Amino acid sequence: MKFKVDRTLLQRALAHIHGVAEKRNTIPILANVLLSYEGDVLRLTATDMEIAVVEDVPAAGERLGSTTVPAAVLFEIVRKLPDGVEIEFDHPESDAPLALRAGRYATSLNVLPVDDFPAMVAGDLPHRFRIPAGTLRGLIDRTKFAISNEETRYYLNGIYLHVTESGAIPMLRAVATDGHRLARVETELPEGARGMPGVIIPRKTVAELRKLLDEGAADLEVSLSDTRIQFQAGPVLLTSKLIDGTFPEYERVIPKGNDRILRITKKDFAAAVGRVAAISQERSRPVKLSVTHNMLTLSAISPDQGVAQEELDDSTVTYDAPPIEIGFQARYLTDITDQIDVEVEFAFADSSAPTLVRDTASPSALYVLMPMRV
Amino acid sequence: MKFKVDRTLLQRALAHIHGVAEKRNTIPILANVLLSYEGDVLRLTATDMEIAVVEDVPAAGERLGSTTVPAAVLFEIVRKLPDGVEIEFDHPESDAPLALRAGRYATSLNVLPVDDFPAMVAGDLPHRFRIPAGTLRGLIDRTKFAISNEETRYYLNGIYLHVTESGAIPMLRAVATDGHRLARVETELPEGARGMPGVIIPRKTVAELRKLLDEGAADLEVSLSDTRIQFQAGPVLLTSKLIDGTFPEYERVIPKGNDRILRITKKDFAAAVGRVAAISQERSRPVKLSVTHNMLTLSAISPDQGVAQEELDDSTVTYDAPPIEIGFQARYLTDITDQIDVEVEFAFADSSAPTLVRDTASPSALYVLMPMRV
Repeated sequence: MKFKVDRTLLQRALAHIHGVAEKRNTIPILANVLLSYEGDVLRLTATDMEIAVVEDVPAAGERLGSTTVPAAVLFEIVRKLPDGVEIEFDHPESDAPLALRAGRYATSLNVLPVDDFPAMVAGDLPHRFRIPAGTLRGLIDRTKFAISNEETRYYLNGIYLHVTESGAIPMLRAVATDGHRLARVETELPEGARGMPGVIIPRKTVAELRKLLDEGAADLEVSLSDTRIQFQAGPVLLTSKLIDGTFPEYERVIPKGNDRILRITKKDFAAAVGRVAAISQERSRPVKLSVTHNMLTLSAISPDQGVAQEELDDSTVTYDAPPIEIGFQARYLTDITDQIDVEVEFAFADSSAPTLVRDTASPSALYVLMPMRV
Repeated sequence: MKFKVDRTLLQRALAHIHGVAEKRNTIPILANVLLSYEGDVLRLTATDMEIAVVEDVPAAGERLGSTTVPAAVLFEIVRKLPDGVEIEFDHPESDAPLALRAGRYATSLNVLPVDDFPAMVAGDLPHRFRIPAGTLRGLIDRTKFAISNEETRYYLNGIYLHVTESGAIPMLRAVATDGHRLARVETELPEGARGMPGVIIPRKTVAELRKLLDEGAADLEVSLSDTRIQFQAGPVLLTSKLIDGTFPEYERVIPKGNDRILRITKKDFAAAVGRVAAISQERSRPVKLSVTHNMLTLSAISPDQGVAQEELDDSTVTYDAPPIEIGFQARYLTDITDQIDVEVEFAFADSSAPTLVRDTASPSALYVLMPMRV
């Protein structure tokens, strides 16, 4: 193959896809990116055999062909070339190195054979719908922090995306939980998604997908089967295996009768949690909420360092129910308030029962937090 | 003690000094900061028994006294308090906790006894001079990258500061070397420094001192003896032990007769080194310089990844001596060029001999690089 490509366009594409290539060379070719010049476009592919990302970049050339080179090295070189230059690729279709030239810079990169590059077969993807990038970003950002890291509970290592009904309106819902907290966000069901199976999208796929959503491709096309999901975001096509497991019946852990309602300004609450928790350097430090009429006292104890507390009064707090004392991990509170703009609503049952948390401005999102003994 | 202090001033002071407190609690009190309210000022002290930093902050109070609390926790709390608040400290002078209040936030911090806090005795410091912060910054920045990390060669684990003569003019000179490269920078001898002993300032002291030089205290007062050095930078007093060792006779490794002179634009050279070195992910990757008349070719080889090269021509290169091929660690080249603004000058002898590097705009700085076989 022989073609030229604009450095800036190539750099942007490599930024999207090099993260999917494996850094640890257990299988060397997984560290490589597949380059295929197909006439007018250069197609770049990276895969770790669970996820594959493909992106097309405009290119102009005189000889078709393909080869594979180390993704990290190519990205590093292209990143360091000056903006605006044109890069020429030249490969004789053999085991010979790939020649890359830009101005007075030239490199020969060792290649691995295209035939060894694993193809990711998406198979038949019978369900297909469009979703605005901003909507998908909202589903991801407000749930991904609750994805479990426990490998033994592999069916919790992703976001569960499925169809449900809210009232009589069909909804697309994203759920993640690690057993200590749960995040559930929904949006109106996109046309075409009706009848899709519930699927668990793996953590790494969520992370790679999330990168593509910042550049404001207006809409994404989502296609899926029981075992695969595919996202087309502008010039990028991400295909991923799904987690082969059963997501738990999470509705059972969402409490129904919690009627002690605390509303509080997010900014003041988050700042106070940070200050009170600063007394302890433990990762799982708990913070106690003591709630009385229109008054919240946050407190934390560290056996080594001392105690801290902060009071929030009726200038930011609304509460009109029997007093309650309840503890949560500071980090879990922060993960949720990070997703809330203006006002947080807690709905308590008692000190040992799951607590509901909501964004008062965004009823489509709901969080459940298990309390800690304090 | 009982006093009030402005949060912003306290935060700035803690930012200067909390880095000196030990993070690992081998001796718990070294993780603490000593707070002394001495009437009108709060004096903060942190030490690791090698370095002590003292800073005074304006404070208003009603009862003198002192105690010690964990530096990291106090810094974290103060950092998280809102700008503009006043913090009240109250301590009954016993083992009881220190009470800290700011608005509706309150904390009790466990203390350790002041008597256990190690005092750093500077002793008699007979040599004293003033030096502009910018001058000291220049001495540090252009040498500290060459400080050795090898603990067995403890006498190289710092910057050697001493008096010398350039022509008949007395100079203050800073030198650092790790055996592979050497950096030597000098400035006119400040008044009062004549007769001072040569001293080796430890790496951590250099780092803590460097933090103080960004805030533009105009002049620093430096005092020293054979065993201690002290820097007064505005309200901050940093005292440090010196390395008890003999710095090698470095002048012997500075070549005298190197007469093959290569001059090159820094920007183009640094960018080309980065691109060529990107072929290899090894930390000690070598880059080869092949120099002919007004022409420089940089090249690198990675057995795994391939080869790379870049040519720089007479638009950036000046060279009029017999051709030479010579190799250096890419990182060592970058460390030096990072200190040079416009034009780099290499003076070679041959491929295996130490090479001199200079900033053509700044003859007071000189670097020596040992070549690598390539």
